[in-house]
Amino acid sequence: MSKYDKRWDIDGYDAIDTDILEAIPFEYPDSHTEVKYIEPEFTSVCPWTGLPDFGTITIKYIPSDKLVELKSLKYYLNSFRNVGILQEHVVNRILNDLKNLLDPIEMTVTAEFNARGGISTVATVNYKKEI
Amino acid sequence: MSKYDKRWDIDGYDAIDTDILEAIPFEYPDSHTEVKYIEPEFTSVCPWTGLPDFGTITIKYIPSDKLVELKSLKYYLNSFRNVGILQEHVVNRILNDLKNLLDPIEMTVTAEFNARGGISTVATVNYKKEI
Amino acid sequence: MSKYDKRWDIDGYDAIDTDILEAIPFEYPDSHTEVKYIEPEFTSVCPWTGLPDFGTITIKYIPSDKLVELKSLKYYLNSFRNVGILQEHVVNRILNDLKNLLDPIEMTVTAEFNARGGISTVATVNYKKEI
Amino acid sequence: MSKYDKRWDIDGYDAIDTDILEAIPFEYPDSHTEVKYIEPEFTSVCPWTGLPDFGTITIKYIPSDKLVELKSLKYYLNSFRNVGILQEHVVNRILNDLKNLLDPIEMTVTAEFNARGGISTVATVNYKKEI
Amino acid sequence: MSKYDKRWDIDGYDAIDTDILEAIPFEYPDSHTEVKYIEPEFTSVCPWTGLPDFGTITIKYIPSDKLVELKSLKYYLNSFRNVGILQEHVVNRILNDLKNLLDPIEMTVTAEFNARGGISTVATVNYKKEI
Amino acid sequence: MSKYDKRWDIDGYDAIDTDILEAIPFEYPDSHTEVKYIEPEFTSVCPWTGLPDFGTITIKYIPSDKLVELKSLKYYLNSFRNVGILQEHVVNRILNDLKNLLDPIEMTVTAEFNARGGISTVATVNYKKEI
Amino acid sequence: MSKYDKRWDIDGYDAIDTDILEAIPFEYPDSHTEVKYIEPEFTSVCPWTGLPDFGTITIKYIPSDKLVELKSLKYYLNSFRNVGILQEHVVNRILNDLKNLLDPIEMTVTAEFNARGGISTVATVNYKKEI
Amino acid sequence: MSKYDKRWDIDGYDAIDTDILEAIPFEYPDSHTEVKYIEPEFTSVCPWTGLPDFGTITIKYIPSDKLVELKSLKYYLNSFRNVGILQEHVVNRILNDLKNLLDPIEMTVTAEFNARGGISTVATVNYKKEI
Amino acid sequence: MSKYDKRWDIDGYDAIDTDILEAIPFEYPDSHTEVKYIEPEFTSVCPWTGLPDFGTITIKYIPSDKLVELKSLKYYLNSFRNVGILQEHVVNRILNDLKNLLDPIEMTVTAEFNARGGISTVATVNYKKEI
Amino acid sequence: MSKYDKRWDIDGYDAIDTDILEAIPFEYPDSHTEVKYIEPEFTSVCPWTGLPDFGTITIKYIPSDKLVELKSLKYYLNSFRNVGILQEHVVNRILNDLKNLLDPIEMTVTAEFNARGGISTVATVNYKKEI
Ligand SMILES: [Ca+2]
Ligand SMILES: [Ca+2]
Ligand SMILES: [Ca+2]
Ligand SMILES: [Ca+2]
Ligand SMILES: [Ca+2]
Ligand SMILES: [Ca+2]
Ligand SMILES: [Ca+2]
Ligand SMILES: [Ca+2]
Ligand SMILES: [Ca+2]
Ligand SMILES: [Ca+2]
Ligand SMILES: [Ca+2]
Ligand SMILES: [Ca+2]
Ligand SMILES: [Ca+2]
Ligand SMILES: [Ca+2]
Ligand SMILES: [Ca+2]
Ligand SMILES: [Ca+2]
Repeated sequence: MSKYDKRWDIDGYDAIDTDILEAIPFEYPDSHTEVKYIEPEFTSVCPWTGLPDFGTITIKYIPSDKLVELKSLKYYLNSFRNVGILQEHVVNRILNDLKNLLDPIEMTVTAEFNARGGISTVATVNYKKEI
Repeated sequence: MSKYDKRWDIDGYDAIDTDILEAIPFEYPDSHTEVKYIEPEFTSVCPWTGLPDFGTITIKYIPSDKLVELKSLKYYLNSFRNVGILQEHVVNRILNDLKNLLDPIEMTVTAEFNARGGISTVATVNYKKEI
Repeated sequence: MSKYDKRWDIDGYDAIDTDILEAIPFEYPDSHTEVKYIEPEFTSVCPWTGLPDFGTITIKYIPSDKLVELKSLKYYLNSFRNVGILQEHVVNRILNDLKNLLDPIEMTVTAEFNARGGISTVATVNYKKEI
Repeated sequence: MSKYDKRWDIDGYDAIDTDILEAIPFEYPDSHTEVKYIEPEFTSVCPWTGLPDFGTITIKYIPSDKLVELKSLKYYLNSFRNVGILQEHVVNRILNDLKNLLDPIEMTVTAEFNARGGISTVATVNYKKEI
Repeated sequence: MSKYDKRWDIDGYDAIDTDILEAIPFEYPDSHTEVKYIEPEFTSVCPWTGLPDFGTITIKYIPSDKLVELKSLKYYLNSFRNVGILQEHVVNRILNDLKNLLDPIEMTVTAEFNARGGISTVATVNYKKEI
Repeated sequence: MSKYDKRWDIDGYDAIDTDILEAIPFEYPDSHTEVKYIEPEFTSVCPWTGLPDFGTITIKYIPSDKLVELKSLKYYLNSFRNVGILQEHVVNRILNDLKNLLDPIEMTVTAEFNARGGISTVATVNYKKEI
Repeated sequence: MSKYDKRWDIDGYDAIDTDILEAIPFEYPDSHTEVKYIEPEFTSVCPWTGLPDFGTITIKYIPSDKLVELKSLKYYLNSFRNVGILQEHVVNRILNDLKNLLDPIEMTVTAEFNARGGISTVATVNYKKEI
Repeated sequence: MSKYDKRWDIDGYDAIDTDILEAIPFEYPDSHTEVKYIEPEFTSVCPWTGLPDFGTITIKYIPSDKLVELKSLKYYLNSFRNVGILQEHVVNRILNDLKNLLDPIEMTVTAEFNARGGISTVATVNYKKEI
Repeated sequence: MSKYDKRWDIDGYDAIDTDILEAIPFEYPDSHTEVKYIEPEFTSVCPWTGLPDFGTITIKYIPSDKLVELKSLKYYLNSFRNVGILQEHVVNRILNDLKNLLDPIEMTVTAEFNARGGISTVATVNYKKEI
Repeated sequence: MSKYDKRWDIDGYDAIDTDILEAIPFEYPDSHTEVKYIEPEFTSVCPWTGLPDFGTITIKYIPSDKLVELKSLKYYLNSFRNVGILQEHVVNRILNDLKNLLDPIEMTVTAEFNARGGISTVATVNYKKEI
């Protein structure tokens, strides 16, 4: 059905707003505290059809001496809204951006996407700092 | 009750549409990302009575450099609709087809079938590439 | 994507097996007993794409002097498996077939279909005998 | 499969033990108190195949001056264990037996049976005393 | 088994501590506000065996110009702990005690008791002031 | 924090794509069938901050002789994605658009939005045709 | 235990910040739209002990031509944080403040407070404009 | 209470129908597939009182070259219906019978029984073939 | 508030009825079967205030050649009803009593107590026989 | 919006009332009992905006010879009510205070905070005594 082809303009990776991310000092750097943020309202779009993907992003990390400031994390994740990106690539992009910001001891990023065509997708990637 | 014998024509394994499966490139091949697809609306039929089996198929794998394209996976799984196949054999057939397509680092396929005669069935098979 | 057009042969309404339906005597015809059958594993297909619809059919009725025999009801509902029919039309077809079989005092048929393209559908139709 | 025909001896209605039922005095006969008993572990058998039905029986009534003693109600309901009786007839038989015992102002008996051949059944019957 | 007969001393109705109940002024007497208190940890004992009953008491009322003070209500309900009383009588006793304390516009008391011998009991009684 | 002001361009009401909506014939116009569509993945944005709202839209109607075609309904609802509109106004806009398309006997549109600043919103509007 | 007496300074009703409340225009004044806001994180304190109460406030109203702006509603509800007030009085105070702000066609305010001493409280008050 | 003693005739272990069990060939003997059957409607009786036990039986095994045919498993488990047997002994009897039938690589049998006298029971037994 | 001090007489540890406990023979002593009993209706009282504690006791053990008879276990646990004992001490007392009765291969006792003053408590103790 | 800046006075860490904490003797010091307290109604405020954080604190420890008295723990946790503190710092502060009070064999403190700006936070810190 032609009228359903290409109805939305799909943003490229450049629309992902990494600059807004902000770190704040963590007062217990050697405590090996495990921190987990859960964003149940993540959305991006399919790179081919522009149809929306909806899912939950979970970021688990053991901070060294920096925490990510939550309001900046929220605006960073919101900037994926109209970006065309495979669900399996979302977790890797978020991991790399936050790794650069926080230099954590360890970090795991998980994305649980709602069903598309009846099939739901979960992707998880983990990073441990070599010591 | 004779009128309940053999009411449906049951397709053979040949009706399973492996050709439609399609792989797409994965941009983070060394990330050891774990990907899981969940299809809660899988159906096939009992090889003897033709009565339907309904269940959830879960495919978990660590991709090397290829992902399975979701729409092609959906049409492949739909092609089991009228195939006569034991629930315990379904997981092995899907594992072998996807192993050939993706050459993954690791893959696990699980099928959780609704009750038949009051008894529900779960079958799970795992594959790890020897390195 | 051409390879995704018209992959399945879609049965017409003629494949709906009304003859197999069977009534059995109800020993308390004046009790105004309310009976409800719930079939959570109903499936039919979209008349255009052939893609499957999955849903729960609920049949609630006040029997006069006849009950529908459950095994015959199961085989009747299973016969929709490969029939192309709009979800909103399914409830009306089932109501008419069972009304003719049972001549009930009252009957309501509800279909709750899983999401298709993210949208799930519920359809309900009610019949009361004029006295 | 012949070996699956007629494997159990099915008790008749005579096995239902109405004599064991016992009433005890209710100290607030004019309070119009509404009482509900829920027995989630009711079982009887199909009159044709002998295969078991499992369900929940709910008895709701407004007592006049008598309550049914719970231990006697439990043994009465247990006596249906090997009785062949249609699920739609179970609620009517229980209503009649308890109506005779208690002469209640009002009584409703509901049976919610687990799925048999994938279809679950709910039957409800109500009685109000004409005043 | 003789050793299981009469193992506990069962308190009489006199152990129910009505004096501890306390009313406090309600600042919006004409607002027709509906208030509901839920006590999920009510316990009393069977008048014959002394075995414990456990349930949830719900008190719903439209106060005139008085509310019951919650700590006093808690100690009043706790005083049923070792009292032998039928579950169907508990709701009537509580309704009468609180009616005398509060002179409410309307009040409903419900008791949902856990299963005893597999059967759970719900009792409800309602009072409306004639105007 | 200035960097959090006005980060997204917010579309006006003109971006709402009413033209794509399509009606299909309903084969049982006098059946008074009740149809309900549930879209759990609706999203629009706050008209002031551009921050996203996420919610579930439920459309319940009694069709005269027309049904809305589901794929067209999906693309229509998706077109709200970047539109700045108050949650309380969303339900009224959708009701008016679908009323014009279907001329239904009756229609109710409900929006249940996730929490924003901790507060979640539900808005419901109903229409009945004067006969 | 003396050390547990009077450990917190309890604010009076003056700390309730009614001035911050703000109304915004509703574009469908005659639509009889029903709007419901749910704040699950309401807290105030007991007027005698200063110990905290936690509950969910639900505000349901049919707006005339004004809606309450959500951020102002959030700050208004937050201002109860250290106020000593009976749970049954909270709903009446909120109803009166919002009635004055919005002059709604109808409004209902409900508070569901977590257990205190094991007993949880629900209070509901309703207002309809005489026409 | 004499009338509650010995009201049912309790079958001995001989009523357990092991002969009806049937094995079918498994097409992937070396796949190390894990198979789990769940029967939520298992019932047997107390060897002393004849009162019923209700529970869920879960059979998990890694088949060598044989699967148990589900209909035969259902009739085998049904044959415990009137057998007097301790819940802790049920799991051992089933394990031994299925071990003899299937010669599995590994098998675990679990029984989760509903409460009796308020106490529920779970029993689990595991078998691994020495290689 | 003086009237709330010391309202109940609190039983000492002597009221715990260890003599009623009974062991029965286990027919599969070498099976290493794991048995778990769950009593969701355990209650005892605070040693200082006499106010009730309510919780769930779970007893998990690997029997040698003896099982505890369930009715005797129920009466033993009921005997804690008016005993003043810290929740953290309850699990240790039960473990020691049952260890002496059964001489098990291994045993774990867990108590999950409802909230008191808003805080709920879970206590777990484990015992393994040195071999 | 200026009127939303700095509306509350935020207490410093000095308001955290560590002195009220009290230890009581544990009668089974060598039992290696594991104790867990769950406080679902913890609240503190954001150090910058003063807006409230709500969460569940879980304290799990293996006591040496001392338990924390629950009422003192409740008042200590309540004293965070108006304290400005990052969620990730809360768990570390509580761990240190209780470590000093109890000198436990091991202790883990977890905080699960409700969503703020749509993102919820979980922080966990663990301590083991070097032996
Ligand atoms: Ca994808
Ligand atoms: Ca099978
Ligand atoms: Ca065909
Ligand atoms: Ca459709
Ligand atoms: Ca039947
Ligand atoms: Ca009773
Ligand atoms: Ca744009
Ligand atoms: Ca809004
Ligand atoms: Ca102050
Ligand atoms: Ca109060
Ligand atoms: Ca017999
Ligand atoms: Ca037993
Ligand atoms: Ca006493
Ligand atoms: Ca304690
Ligand atoms: Ca202050
Ligand atoms: Ca924070």
